Amino acid sequence: MSLTSLSTREATAKAAVLVEALPYIRAHAGKTVVVKLGGAALVDELVAPKVAGDLALLSSVGMRLVVVHGGGPQVSEAMRAAGIEPAFVGGLRVTDDAAMEVVRRVLAGSINSDLVGTLCVAGLRAVGLTGADAALLTCGRRIGANGEDLGRVGSVLETRSQLLTDLLDHGYTPVLTSIAPDGEGGFLNLNADAAAAAVACSLGAAKLVYLTNVAGLYQDLGNEGSLISQLTPSELETMIPTLSAGMRPKAEAAVTALRRGVPKVHVLDGGVEHALLLEVFTDEGIGTQVMA
Amino acid sequence: MSLTSLSTREATAKAAVLVEALPYIRAHAGKTVVVKLGGAALVDELVAPKVAGDLALLSSVGMRLVVVHGGGPQVSEAMRAAGIEPAFVGGLRVTDDAAMEVVRRVLAGSINSDLVGTLCVAGLRAVGLTGADAALLTCGRRIGANGEDLGRVGSVLETRSQLLTDLLDHGYTPVLTSIAPDGEGGFLNLNADAAAAAVACSLGAAKLVYLTNVAGLYQDLGNEGSLISQLTPSELETMIPTLSAGMRPKAEAAVTALRRGVPKVHVLDGGVEHALLLEVFTDEGIGTQVMA
Amino acid sequence: MSLTSLSTREATAKAAVLVEALPYIRAHAGKTVVVKLGGAALVDELVAPKVAGDLALLSSVGMRLVVVHGGGPQVSEAMRAAGIEPAFVGGLRVTDDAAMEVVRRVLAGSINSDLVGTLCVAGLRAVGLTGADAALLTCGRRIGANGEDLGRVGSVLETRSQLLTDLLDHGYTPVLTSIAPDGEGGFLNLNADAAAAAVACSLGAAKLVYLTNVAGLYQDLGNEGSLISQLTPSELETMIPTLSAGMRPKAEAAVTALRRGVPKVHVLDGGVEHALLLEVFTDEGIGTQVMA
Amino acid sequence: MSLTSLSTREATAKAAVLVEALPYIRAHAGKTVVVKLGGAALVDELVAPKVAGDLALLSSVGMRLVVVHGGGPQVSEAMRAAGIEPAFVGGLRVTDDAAMEVVRRVLAGSINSDLVGTLCVAGLRAVGLTGADAALLTCGRRIGANGEDLGRVGSVLETRSQLLTDLLDHGYTPVLTSIAPDGEGGFLNLNADAAAAAVACSLGAAKLVYLTNVAGLYQDLGNEGSLISQLTPSELETMIPTLSAGMRPKAEAAVTALRRGVPKVHVLDGGVEHALLLEVFTDEGIGTQVMA
Amino acid sequence: MSLTSLSTREATAKAAVLVEALPYIRAHAGKTVVVKLGGAALVDELVAPKVAGDLALLSSVGMRLVVVHGGGPQVSEAMRAAGIEPAFVGGLRVTDDAAMEVVRRVLAGSINSDLVGTLCVAGLRAVGLTGADAALLTCGRRIGANGEDLGRVGSVLETRSQLLTDLLDHGYTPVLTSIAPDGEGGFLNLNADAAAAAVACSLGAAKLVYLTNVAGLYQDLGNEGSLISQLTPSELETMIPTLSAGMRPKAEAAVTALRRGVPKVHVLDGGVEHALLLEVFTDEGIGTQVMA
Amino acid sequence: MSLTSLSTREATAKAAVLVEALPYIRAHAGKTVVVKLGGAALVDELVAPKVAGDLALLSSVGMRLVVVHGGGPQVSEAMRAAGIEPAFVGGLRVTDDAAMEVVRRVLAGSINSDLVGTLCVAGLRAVGLTGADAALLTCGRRIGANGEDLGRVGSVLETRSQLLTDLLDHGYTPVLTSIAPDGEGGFLNLNADAAAAAVACSLGAAKLVYLTNVAGLYQDLGNEGSLISQLTPSELETMIPTLSAGMRPKAEAAVTALRRGVPKVHVLDGGVEHALLLEVFTDEGIGTQVMA
Repeated sequence: MSLTSLSTREATAKAAVLVEALPYIRAHAGKTVVVKLGGAALVDELVAPKVAGDLALLSSVGMRLVVVHGGGPQVSEAMRAAGIEPAFVGGLRVTDDAAMEVVRRVLAGSINSDLVGTLCVAGLRAVGLTGADAALLTCGRRIGANGEDLGRVGSVLETRSQLLTDLLDHGYTPVLTSIAPDGEGGFLNLNADAAAAAVACSLGAAKLVYLTNVAGLYQDLGNEGSLISQLTPSELETMIPTLSAGMRPKAEAAVTALRRGVPKVHVLDGGVEHALLLEVFTDEGIGTQVMA
Repeated sequence: MSLTSLSTREATAKAAVLVEALPYIRAHAGKTVVVKLGGAALVDELVAPKVAGDLALLSSVGMRLVVVHGGGPQVSEAMRAAGIEPAFVGGLRVTDDAAMEVVRRVLAGSINSDLVGTLCVAGLRAVGLTGADAALLTCGRRIGANGEDLGRVGSVLETRSQLLTDLLDHGYTPVLTSIAPDGEGGFLNLNADAAAAAVACSLGAAKLVYLTNVAGLYQDLGNEGSLISQLTPSELETMIPTLSAGMRPKAEAAVTALRRGVPKVHVLDGGVEHALLLEVFTDEGIGTQVMA
Repeated sequence: MSLTSLSTREATAKAAVLVEALPYIRAHAGKTVVVKLGGAALVDELVAPKVAGDLALLSSVGMRLVVVHGGGPQVSEAMRAAGIEPAFVGGLRVTDDAAMEVVRRVLAGSINSDLVGTLCVAGLRAVGLTGADAALLTCGRRIGANGEDLGRVGSVLETRSQLLTDLLDHGYTPVLTSIAPDGEGGFLNLNADAAAAAVACSLGAAKLVYLTNVAGLYQDLGNEGSLISQLTPSELETMIPTLSAGMRPKAEAAVTALRRGVPKVHVLDGGVEHALLLEVFTDEGIGTQVMA
Repeated sequence: MSLTSLSTREATAKAAVLVEALPYIRAHAGKTVVVKLGGAALVDELVAPKVAGDLALLSSVGMRLVVVHGGGPQVSEAMRAAGIEPAFVGGLRVTDDAAMEVVRRVLAGSINSDLVGTLCVAGLRAVGLTGADAALLTCGRRIGANGEDLGRVGSVLETRSQLLTDLLDHGYTPVLTSIAPDGEGGFLNLNADAAAAAVACSLGAAKLVYLTNVAGLYQDLGNEGSLISQLTPSELETMIPTLSAGMRPKAEAAVTALRRGVPKVHVLDGGVEHALLLEVFTDEGIGTQVMA
Repeated sequence: MSLTSLSTREATAKAAVLVEALPYIRAHAGKTVVVKLGGAALVDELVAPKVAGDLALLSSVGMRLVVVHGGGPQVSEAMRAAGIEPAFVGGLRVTDDAAMEVVRRVLAGSINSDLVGTLCVAGLRAVGLTGADAALLTCGRRIGANGEDLGRVGSVLETRSQLLTDLLDHGYTPVLTSIAPDGEGGFLNLNADAAAAAVACSLGAAKLVYLTNVAGLYQDLGNEGSLISQLTPSELETMIPTLSAGMRPKAEAAVTALRRGVPKVHVLDGGVEHALLLEVFTDEGIGTQVMA
Repeated sequence: MSLTSLSTREATAKAAVLVEALPYIRAHAGKTVVVKLGGAALVDELVAPKVAGDLALLSSVGMRLVVVHGGGPQVSEAMRAAGIEPAFVGGLRVTDDAAMEVVRRVLAGSINSDLVGTLCVAGLRAVGLTGADAALLTCGRRIGANGEDLGRVGSVLETRSQLLTDLLDHGYTPVLTSIAPDGEGGFLNLNADAAAAAVACSLGAAKLVYLTNVAGLYQDLGNEGSLISQLTPSELETMIPTLSAGMRPKAEAAVTALRRGVPKVHVLDGGVEHALLLEVFTDEGIGTQVMA
């Protein structure tokens, strides 16, 4: 026999959160959400399991999750270890054949299997994928903004999402890394933000979430009080030239996704505890939400 | 474009409630819960719609709800209006034929249809029932503890719960009032606490909840600080002689239900806002929980 | 060992009835029939079980039955017992708040549960309903032909028949009484003949049957030999001004139902043994049939 | 507009037949009945369509019918036309190879396709079969009671009824004639009464009906008043030595079927109009019924 | 323990056949093929079981087979035995009522049941049919090219192929002989080549195969080296006047079938071992293939 | 129009192969076959696409294929490139943490995605997997035969094959590489022959095929004429000490699989064209088959 200790004030506060959250929980059950993992959420040994826990909670109340990831810093490190100096043109990594071999070994061989392992420990039935699996992604080569030859850098031309749908229907969580076949027996290196957007469009996802190292988009970069809670695709498009180099591809991918039917894109700081839960299940959210 | 206002402290508090609640939400999806409504939850024009709102939230995240109710005070009032003086033996209402006619008119004619209306306004698809519908309850006459003739007072002998299951499977919320046929063309008056327990056993419910006018069971009646959060069926059985007259039939019905396979019985104050949500979706709960 | 006693003449007669009936039985299997019970069929202790037996036979060969009932005489009696004098304007009962409470207690509390009990004894799985259940009927207030305020008298604006369909699909027989919510927390008193017609239209019923105290419609009221076997909606409409007060609302409801797609309406004397069987399963029928 | 002409007396009589018949109709829906057609029902150009009409009525109220037939007189006629003199031993036709060719040409080539045509005209979806179809019947040779060589005369050793079940499940009426393969590339001639019994046992039929040229079994052959309405398998077995040559194989097959689980066997005069309907849908029946 | 003996040359040859055959096997799985059996394949005691074996192999890898047959020589023989001299007008058998009786006894009574037996021994679940079964074929009388009265000669007006589809769906092989009801209680004699084409059109068959006594169509009749492997419907149509009397109705039926949507028609010599397998599972085939 | 050129001799030979193959094709449809790819089949740019083509043909006739691979030579090469000298104890690679990182980058990052790409080009819907996906393989550390610490070398303790089954049910071809999580956030290096056997047991596979660089098992190693076509598990077990170092783990895994219910294990030379087809679809096969 044990006595009750919940005070009335605590009870009232808890009840308010539940009343706020339950309609969102109901509304999101059965909906598909694509989550691009980057930054600390991907690599920090303390943060990654927490994010995995949040993803498991979202999945447990019926959301259908697809995780997409890249891994820039780890690739650069491995390239240097292999004696190749990383080079970028307009934010895109110049990727020759030797570099491509490093890219896919790091992304598919190390990061993807680590992430799948972490998500399985959190209770998800995660399945690692590349764009080659069941010919999921068809890509073409991409050249630099000024016509530079970037080597094995690709962009998604077509997405065959049946494999993702089949896995989701059976309760699996696909975990896709950003490489894909070039149609000639080789592989291409994709921007993971763009790949996440392509997958979200193809699945008719209800949400596309970018988990990053920043709290969201700011009206005045550097002024923390100016974090934007909500904006429109047009407003976002206007802001692109003012954004940081890391945020620009996310913003471009977000605008594309919103124009092609994904109703909401979120940018969150993956390092804030339970950022995903707060964004999805509260009225205000915690990061920046762009609504079509 | 709008700026964010959620403070870190609020965010942390909200996240904690969600992390606490989500596993319960997942665990209860698809489970059957029988809720006996009494006291203010049934009749107070301010309280009833709030309770209905909570029931609608529980239903919206996949719980299968069956509501059971009586209506003692209203019956007594109607009897007096019809010139019949209410009389009780051992807490059971002596019910002659004229009284029985009053009982079923008040319970099935007034309270049940009012409650159905309130629940529908809250968004549930409520369907009012008596024990006669599809021969749901088979009852026998019950005599007083000292052999007194109580007239048309009955106890449930058998429950044919197929109608409840069919309604639940199609998303309806059955609302059962405590009268049932006597097998000879007449009706019997049931104790609603016992009827709720019988239904919960028959459905293999995961929970039986008594929404009452008190916060739960107390170790020392009158000492608010001694509210019991959790106890065992044996502990409850031992307490029965010390309980108030109103609580005794609940406690007896609860012990019966727990012995016959209902794993948890809850006693809550229906007048506390969101008592149901707090009891179901938090670790501590807000009332008294008896676990088999 | 027993010898045969069926004579050839008997055999021939029986065979003729079967050959006549079997195509009707086949044709009606799976069809929905709305039966408005009134008069002796509803209240006579000798007649009601017989009508229930016929309904059970119809159901046993695959017809989907919906029963609708009112209960005018019983309501008047209870009103007088409660000190309220019944008053009518143009055949409609003036119903103030106190009267409405009596109406629903008598209809939903007494008559509906008695009828459900009788039908269950006959072998049906009857389920009692009011217009409040799953928000089945949406109603508006109705004023007298000359603009009189009739109080809580309503007419059906919309029928959500999903609950009826779900119950029928699972083999239940819905038994609906003629009260419905007013959308503001109160109830309205409906004309049961009109309610039956509204339900029949909404379900796309194959038949609407009025079981009454008279054999059908007469060409010359008072001349038994002039009972009409069959007529058209236009012929019926023309006759309305000549009809008795009790028959007029049935005739109006019938014309409405026929115009909105119910192909056949029948008026029968519920007191004639097996009137329902004879009407449904013979070429000539026994009462009056109006065919669109 | 038309007036009613059904008199009360007629109405009462019709109602009585319906009340008697409806429970049988309900009870037989979905049940399998094997009907052996012989005599006039098979060959009389006036009788056959009437019997077909009755079978169509039975089928229309949900009975699953299997028709079995032989065709002794037609076979004898064709044999004589081919210059073969018919010969019998203990009621079984001596069948050499040439005779067997005549047998299957008459039974499968002429009678079966005629009967299928007649049944289709009556509204059934009849499908003609021999024991060879999908290897339905496995047979062995049968010798005479005194060891005579009867040639190609067979008895059923095993029945693979899946083809019948598949056809019945899709609403077809199998029409089986009494020939079957001998397992060595040839065919055997079966007694149709015995084949019908074998099929009824294999299907777990609810009834086996012999439509013949006589009204049933008589206590005193020749005394029409002594027609037996009902008897037990033991009583029937005792009677066998006293029966006519044509009735004996039916009686033997009936006893076998009753012993192996077919609950009822009927013997009827197929020439009596609607004999099938009267036997199936009335309490007394019209022929002789043997009940296990 | 056993040592390997397959030589490299044999292995290479076997592998080549498999690589050639597997795509055809895959492509034909689940497809419907109508096979008209004639000549030796139908009557030769040595050939028929081999053809049945090939049909069983085709069925075993998922092809849905419908067999159609006539039986001209056997009918002529039986007519002569019955004292009727066979007569033909433009290749069609003049068929009076007596001849028709012979026709159906031979086709349905003898040939069909023999063929069903042979196919069942080969492992198929064959079911014999005439055009009367479930009213499969509706036919009209056909007159000679110069208006001659041919008696009971018919052509197919309509095909109700549901029975065939139901049988195929359950794994049966329908075996149809070329007689059909005349709609007036009698039967008509059909050309089996035309009946096979009608059935193939109605089923949307992927192939129609004529198994005959000749190797296929020849560019120069009599010159074996001029066997045509493949041609178009127009080329075939042009050839018709030059064809043998037996081939002409096949060619006409083939052209009709190809025009109505059957994509391929084959003419093969049923006497060549495994002709069916070679035609279906090799690139070149062995007979003549006409492709739309 | 084209003339036929298939000679009778060719036709007879082709027919013989088809008649031999079709029963195997039928028998294997729907059966699961685990194929361990090693040697030339895995890495030779000319051989790999041919093996992929054979796998696609097997899949096209309904076989459910699971591919398993390792990649020893490539791992050794990459280790040397990273400055780590490969070392083996009893045939098992000593794998420290740095080596493990190389192992999974080569196996999961390079070989697996190349193989998936090649199989997709051949028409399969291949999906690359590691033992981490959906927690497919649970492993423990393995020590050397003499207790040596081998580092991150593992053996399979448990297989959760639901992911494989779900993928196979939807027409995908799982391609599993031989690494698996260690349950503590790291990975283990598995012997691919043993992993293939574990998967085959868990799936209840009908066959386990080792595609290697040798033609099979020899009675006298070095004597090509002594290639064993067929042997028993006991015979194989007896041979193990005499086998080459590369064949020994295959033989041990094969014996284990055969003892745990896999009925057949095959050892084939993946470099022989169409070795898979010949082994599966001919009586003799081309390599060595071990049958339980």
